[in-house]
Amino acid sequence: MHFASDNAGPAHPSVIEAVARASDGYQRAYGAEAAMERVQGRIREIFEAPQAEVHLVATGTAANALMLGCMARPWDAVFCSEHAHVEHDEANAPEFYTGGAKLSLVAAPDGRMTPEALERALLPDGARSFHNAQLGPLTLTQTTETGAVYGAPEIAALAEIAHARGMKLHMDGARFANALVALGCSPAEMTWKAGVDALAFGGTKNGCMGVEAAVFFDPALAAEFAHRRKRGGHLFSKHRFLSAQMEAYLDADLWRDLAARANAACARLVAGLRAHPEAEIVWPADANLVFVALPRAVHRRLLEAGADYHVMDGDPMQGAPEERLTARMVCDWSMDEDGVDRFLSLLG
Amino acid sequence: MHFASDNAGPAHPSVIEAVARASDGYQRAYGAEAAMERVQGRIREIFEAPQAEVHLVATGTAANALMLGCMARPWDAVFCSEHAHVEHDEANAPEFYTGGAKLSLVAAPDGRMTPEALERALLPDGARSFHNAQLGPLTLTQTTETGAVYGAPEIAALAEIAHARGMKLHMDGARFANALVALGCSPAEMTWKAGVDALAFGGTKNGCMGVEAAVFFDPALAAEFAHRRKRGGHLFSKHRFLSAQMEAYLDADLWRDLAARANAACARLVAGLRAHPEAEIVWPADANLVFVALPRAVHRRLLEAGADYHVMDGDPMQGAPEERLTARMVCDWSMDEDGVDRFLSLLG
Amino acid sequence: MHFASDNAGPAHPSVIEAVARASDGYQRAYGAEAAMERVQGRIREIFEAPQAEVHLVATGTAANALMLGCMARPWDAVFCSEHAHVEHDEANAPEFYTGGAKLSLVAAPDGRMTPEALERALLPDGARSFHNAQLGPLTLTQTTETGAVYGAPEIAALAEIAHARGMKLHMDGARFANALVALGCSPAEMTWKAGVDALAFGGTKNGCMGVEAAVFFDPALAAEFAHRRKRGGHLFSKHRFLSAQMEAYLDADLWRDLAARANAACARLVAGLRAHPEAEIVWPADANLVFVALPRAVHRRLLEAGADYHVMDGDPMQGAPEERLTARMVCDWSMDEDGVDRFLSLLG
Amino acid sequence: MHFASDNAGPAHPSVIEAVARASDGYQRAYGAEAAMERVQGRIREIFEAPQAEVHLVATGTAANALMLGCMARPWDAVFCSEHAHVEHDEANAPEFYTGGAKLSLVAAPDGRMTPEALERALLPDGARSFHNAQLGPLTLTQTTETGAVYGAPEIAALAEIAHARGMKLHMDGARFANALVALGCSPAEMTWKAGVDALAFGGTKNGCMGVEAAVFFDPALAAEFAHRRKRGGHLFSKHRFLSAQMEAYLDADLWRDLAARANAACARLVAGLRAHPEAEIVWPADANLVFVALPRAVHRRLLEAGADYHVMDGDPMQGAPEERLTARMVCDWSMDEDGVDRFLSLLG
Repeated sequence: MHFASDNAGPAHPSVIEAVARASDGYQRAYGAEAAMERVQGRIREIFEAPQAEVHLVATGTAANALMLGCMARPWDAVFCSEHAHVEHDEANAPEFYTGGAKLSLVAAPDGRMTPEALERALLPDGARSFHNAQLGPLTLTQTTETGAVYGAPEIAALAEIAHARGMKLHMDGARFANALVALGCSPAEMTWKAGVDALAFGGTKNGCMGVEAAVFFDPALAAEFAHRRKRGGHLFSKHRFLSAQMEAYLDADLWRDLAARANAACARLVAGLRAHPEAEIVWPADANLVFVALPRAVHRRLLEAGADYHVMDGDPMQGAPEERLTARMVCDWSMDEDGVDRFLSLLG
Repeated sequence: MHFASDNAGPAHPSVIEAVARASDGYQRAYGAEAAMERVQGRIREIFEAPQAEVHLVATGTAANALMLGCMARPWDAVFCSEHAHVEHDEANAPEFYTGGAKLSLVAAPDGRMTPEALERALLPDGARSFHNAQLGPLTLTQTTETGAVYGAPEIAALAEIAHARGMKLHMDGARFANALVALGCSPAEMTWKAGVDALAFGGTKNGCMGVEAAVFFDPALAAEFAHRRKRGGHLFSKHRFLSAQMEAYLDADLWRDLAARANAACARLVAGLRAHPEAEIVWPADANLVFVALPRAVHRRLLEAGADYHVMDGDPMQGAPEERLTARMVCDWSMDEDGVDRFLSLLG
Repeated sequence: MHFASDNAGPAHPSVIEAVARASDGYQRAYGAEAAMERVQGRIREIFEAPQAEVHLVATGTAANALMLGCMARPWDAVFCSEHAHVEHDEANAPEFYTGGAKLSLVAAPDGRMTPEALERALLPDGARSFHNAQLGPLTLTQTTETGAVYGAPEIAALAEIAHARGMKLHMDGARFANALVALGCSPAEMTWKAGVDALAFGGTKNGCMGVEAAVFFDPALAAEFAHRRKRGGHLFSKHRFLSAQMEAYLDADLWRDLAARANAACARLVAGLRAHPEAEIVWPADANLVFVALPRAVHRRLLEAGADYHVMDGDPMQGAPEERLTARMVCDWSMDEDGVDRFLSLLG
Repeated sequence: MHFASDNAGPAHPSVIEAVARASDGYQRAYGAEAAMERVQGRIREIFEAPQAEVHLVATGTAANALMLGCMARPWDAVFCSEHAHVEHDEANAPEFYTGGAKLSLVAAPDGRMTPEALERALLPDGARSFHNAQLGPLTLTQTTETGAVYGAPEIAALAEIAHARGMKLHMDGARFANALVALGCSPAEMTWKAGVDALAFGGTKNGCMGVEAAVFFDPALAAEFAHRRKRGGHLFSKHRFLSAQMEAYLDADLWRDLAARANAACARLVAGLRAHPEAEIVWPADANLVFVALPRAVHRRLLEAGADYHVMDGDPMQGAPEERLTARMVCDWSMDEDGVDRFLSLLG
């Protein structure tokens, strides 16, 4: 009954085995090992993007912050949703890696920013002088932080606005695979064909130990990446242990399979929650996480029985029993029907 | 015959096995897993430092730069040896993490700075005003970049100078275990008993996949570490894969055994080199790396026969055959007698 | 008919004369001149704050950004109004000087943030972990960017919320004198007695050439100022030309007299605008600036006749003549009745 | 007898008068005033550089640090002389404005770096990878910090080395006019014709209140300047008071006349010093400053009699009377024969 985060689960055995196999004799360090070449090739294939530049780092914070650093100047504003992880949960890592760029929040009623809200946030043409932050990149999270997933046309509409102003589009894809499985489209359709210039392609939350790929569809944006990664302390000397993870993750569609499992578990969870008279699903639960409002008394019962998840807006243990509090529940790749069903039976 | 770097070798099987075992079910993320508690306890024991604060990161660059960030203000000078890795091989990571502090180089004829050179670099008391960089920390590398090892009294003498000015002492211990084995003293004697306030305790070069411990003997220096680590993108969500490595590394003295192997291989290599009429050992080869000057013709022969090492000061393949060029040769934990002997037989 | 900005007007003759007098022979450089001692003493008297630390810089951007740098750590959030100059018009200077802190916007319906909005923005106690930006200072602009002025009790209410969380309170006083004159209270009442820990006390907009005082009522906050100012390039070698301006500005209440003139001109302007059937005053015009909505046709007439002011939300020259656009009009110390009346007569 | 610094003297009356004249009615703010246009035009004429981009700031620290920020990336090394002001006396301002670039010191026996020393510092081609700081700009100080002046061919030789590596050449011209007068060449010959890409052209030390021109002979290097200046807090709202100073300074060759006065005073001082049996001139005193070694007893006598200058390497008041200590003596534009002669008569 572990729904706290897809960070709390294990790595997939295939990933672990690949790591063990990689610990074999001498190899070139710092990403010059043969496996990294293969990883880049495989990602280019999967995304139908033969020109893409691919680099690996170990954390999502690093992937997003380094990429935004490549895309924004210190006097720019980076435009993100009001729910964005980069704004709320990265301890100012984007500000650090951009040298002090500002995050400007765009209204996103259900987690997805709308074209209208983006237009408003950008201000009319000519409204910015050197007194103001300049137009930096737009960053979208896919799957969003609310659990909603942008459709490819929605991404394209936002990309069009950004590109018309000369802005680049970054995608925070910590849960990219879950969104892809939810939409059933191709990786290319959800990214560069919709206008995405650079993608942080997540592995950690979806069955890896700790690996994320910075994928630059516009290779010019990658020009500084090697310097920025080293300067940030994110270049692994025994880099083989990153490329081994990613290679296993991509092999035989493991990445999609694991996301499909997580999404299926979440769908089962959502169905069960919907059936409960006091539960209210807050946002569209399109992928592997769901926000649900429940009375405090229910939370208390669940948590005391050993369920594990985050209540976002109050203390579940203290206060009026009927007050509704919103919980975030996340299913990782290792969540099975049994775990969901045990939880739902507790819910009653 | 791989002497290019201790970064090019594999991880030890015990480390890999521990990582595989750690991938088991749900655990608290971000360092709150039980293993991290054990790692901190074990390091406190090993260093006889019950108050020490311990954090893990995946790279040495991150460990050193984050720690220097905790110890230096942006308008400070960090004092390091003229050979220091933090100055020459970190792509300005220390400057990045300190917010723009300066590295001031101290003369270090054989890789070890002398008390006289340090005094000179610090300037007389009162010579610094707000126009100048202020006194920040002193950082020493142990094992030094030249292969020489500071004795504990040498460290203490430098620490005394630093502490008299209110400066803190940081130790870059990427090859800490190799130095410890070389000196045969206790971890406490080589660190806090000699005045070291904070140590980057390396695992990666000595048999781990990628893990370094930031050990703050002065826990007040660690106050900002959690914020700085997260902001730098160095907090692992599946942190269990860092603590598992470190736990295995510390278990049953594995870390010392691996360093002893590397040092023994290097001693065998040095002995063989010394026996060669044209080889000249450049600096004291106290631990697991040696710098040796050899005629270009000899380098050429060795490299063409498959030996792998770095020539520091020229192109071994082009130029006068009798010109002497200096090579750096490093033995990692997995280098065995056989490898050394095959190389030495090539040397002739 | 110049209402574009109080930056567009001249310096007061007394200030110019003082600058000329200061250019007399050799004096100690970098703020060690005798006049600076007198300036600090005079500010301590005026503010009834004998312990206050006072430093001068030449621009408001520098004063605010350097002070916020002293008050916020790089992983903090600085809380400011949604209208705040530091957010909108400083090209990321606060982010630069804080080393990458974030500005978090607080709702401020008429330019003044409310206690409720501040509480909401701060989140409940315990809701921030090391994943999040930490609580940095609160900054209030007085006179606000809308022209409204906080009453001293309003400041005190916000200060209380901030101090209860351990946050410090900074005041951006680019138009401090105008607010003081509007309220008719004492400098102490509007600052430290209401909980302000540090004030950027403006001179430039109110009759100086370019000088602002950083006034730290809590002198501990000033500990880093000298280093930060020098590092930022804001320490004048011929600092006497800053202290001379400030000394003349403070002498014989010149600063209050100039603000009173500006406020009186603005009151006359506002009265005239209110009398116009199509004008709508947007926010409380408490001091020396007013936002007024007028039909585009009216703007066009005024601007073509030579009036000078900024239209905020559209092109006054193109579009439907009846559409209302909001203008900002500012009266500086040198605006006289005549200028206002000529403008009003144009308005008709 | 004031030889402490050319920062301690007054501004020239013509500069003060121009400032007073500029305080006249409403003008466009932030550098859009008409005088700034004229200043740029005049500098283009003087330097025979019709394409040069010119901006003004109030301090030399700001001018140099902002320009280096435009020319260096955060992972670069900026190469400067071992005596450089930017290294020793700017409290890490260059590191701040470059976002953490490193200053790499080049040997400069008499204050002027030699081509050989520069070549050595740059390392051979191909010796830098992404582990290392990259090649950023070269910065030369003219007049150097020792008082020696580079000849135009010396500058050209260093420029050639830099340009061959793709590096740009910055000149710190805090005492540019003094060097120009000393060499008797044209401004163009000492700058862009010798390979200088950007010049910080000083006014403050040579008769202004506080103004320096950032002159970009390569206008592409100025692309970010407006954003960087505003972000640094160095854009004056009442910018007219900067342009008025610079306009007066350039008018009728005032800048050259003032430098000629300062150099003449210094030459008289040096001649007097040379005549003294115990004085030893340390470095070539080509312009308006001289370093001279004198016994402590002599320093003591001079200082007690009211002479004002800095002793660099010890306490003149305490220690062996015969020990020689080195003093720096600077003549500003307002130093006259009388002042020098009074000092020399004291010296005896």
